[in-house]
Amino acid sequence: MSELVAEEMPGARLAVLSGPTFAAEVAHGLPTAVTLACGDPDVGRALVAAIGTPCFRPYLTDDVIGAEMGGAVKNVLAIACGIVEGRGLGDNARAALLTRGLAELMRLAVAKGGRAETCMGLSGLGDLALTAASRQSRNYSLGVALGQGRPLADILKDRRSVTEGVATSASVVQLAGRLGVDMPICRAVAGMLHQGMAIEETIQNLLSRPFTEELGFSAGTPDRP
Amino acid sequence: MSELVAEEMPGARLAVLSGPTFAAEVAHGLPTAVTLACGDPDVGRALVAAIGTPCFRPYLTDDVIGAEMGGAVKNVLAIACGIVEGRGLGDNARAALLTRGLAELMRLAVAKGGRAETCMGLSGLGDLALTAASRQSRNYSLGVALGQGRPLADILKDRRSVTEGVATSASVVQLAGRLGVDMPICRAVAGMLHQGMAIEETIQNLLSRPFTEELGFSAGTPDRP
Repeated sequence: MSELVAEEMPGARLAVLSGPTFAAEVAHGLPTAVTLACGDPDVGRALVAAIGTPCFRPYLTDDVIGAEMGGAVKNVLAIACGIVEGRGLGDNARAALLTRGLAELMRLAVAKGGRAETCMGLSGLGDLALTAASRQSRNYSLGVALGQGRPLADILKDRRSVTEGVATSASVVQLAGRLGVDMPICRAVAGMLHQGMAIEETIQNLLSRPFTEELGFSAGTPDRP
Repeated sequence: MSELVAEEMPGARLAVLSGPTFAAEVAHGLPTAVTLACGDPDVGRALVAAIGTPCFRPYLTDDVIGAEMGGAVKNVLAIACGIVEGRGLGDNARAALLTRGLAELMRLAVAKGGRAETCMGLSGLGDLALTAASRQSRNYSLGVALGQGRPLADILKDRRSVTEGVATSASVVQLAGRLGVDMPICRAVAGMLHQGMAIEETIQNLLSRPFTEELGFSAGTPDRP
């Protein structure tokens, strides 16, 4: 989005707000913390002062790209976590998928010019921790229904709201391909949603990948065998 | 633990296994992934080959300290997340606490000679994602009971199992003080458990901290105001 805005409105002072924020909780004044990303530190600080309250706490960063990547990719990962839940694969598997999924997110953000740490902040990790464990989340609940065997078209037909991760999964895989970043989990989600890949077979493929080192998230470096 | 083992058994070839592993799920053959940390890459690879299966996937790292820190500090953070749940503060608050808590864990691990990325792996983030969202976890459920107003002594009296985070919270705060690392969430947990600090007041104190930048996790650097 920041690239589009910069093209359409050159010189606009842009900031990105992203993080774990169920709207109803914010409206009720429950404590909430978000990432506020802004390339201009003065504008960023002014925004924090304008919208921050003891119960709505913006954390400032200048990493606009990292914050945007977190907000987008987490929806794809939430679908993956939902599939694991819907399929009854257990909490260990969901926690592992969340962790390895965040490593993918970091690799993509870094390759795109963002920072890994941002993905480990409120946008990214924080948002995913909220999204990937609650049926309130549209992406997670879509994954649960898929995991239980309902066809995608069927699930979407009953929904009036947008489930962002469906379209995002295809965009993410495309971007990752262009940047040479290995994202097996996002690729698996896109494959199941858009190329009719079978869930069971996809899971078996993920589990049969060779064992690897844990730190495979530098830019453009696929997981080492 | 690795320091103790090295003292007592000099030259022992030590490895640490840590990660999101509800034992019952492992026993049922559900997919599980863990961090296997070993300073000697040959020993590490031999262990991965010996215990790895398609459904029990060890990810290798040489960062023993980081893996140990994740396994220990996550118990303290799980208590904090439980308190938020027990007090009805909402999912936004829990996700924020988890995220800012992991930033504390990273600061401590780095100050102690480990790596931040390890804390973002299966030991640390992965384990916390499991522990801090499930009443199956002893630390999380202790936090929930505290948040609901039950006194600590009362909760512990009914338990036959060990709730590690209670003792760990004091050790973590002590270590953080020695290394000059700012850990407000762990300090708050230790204060509530061991110094009779009131929960409501502690929460208000955390919420009234000055706004800060998001990336405050380099070694020994307290959150910048």
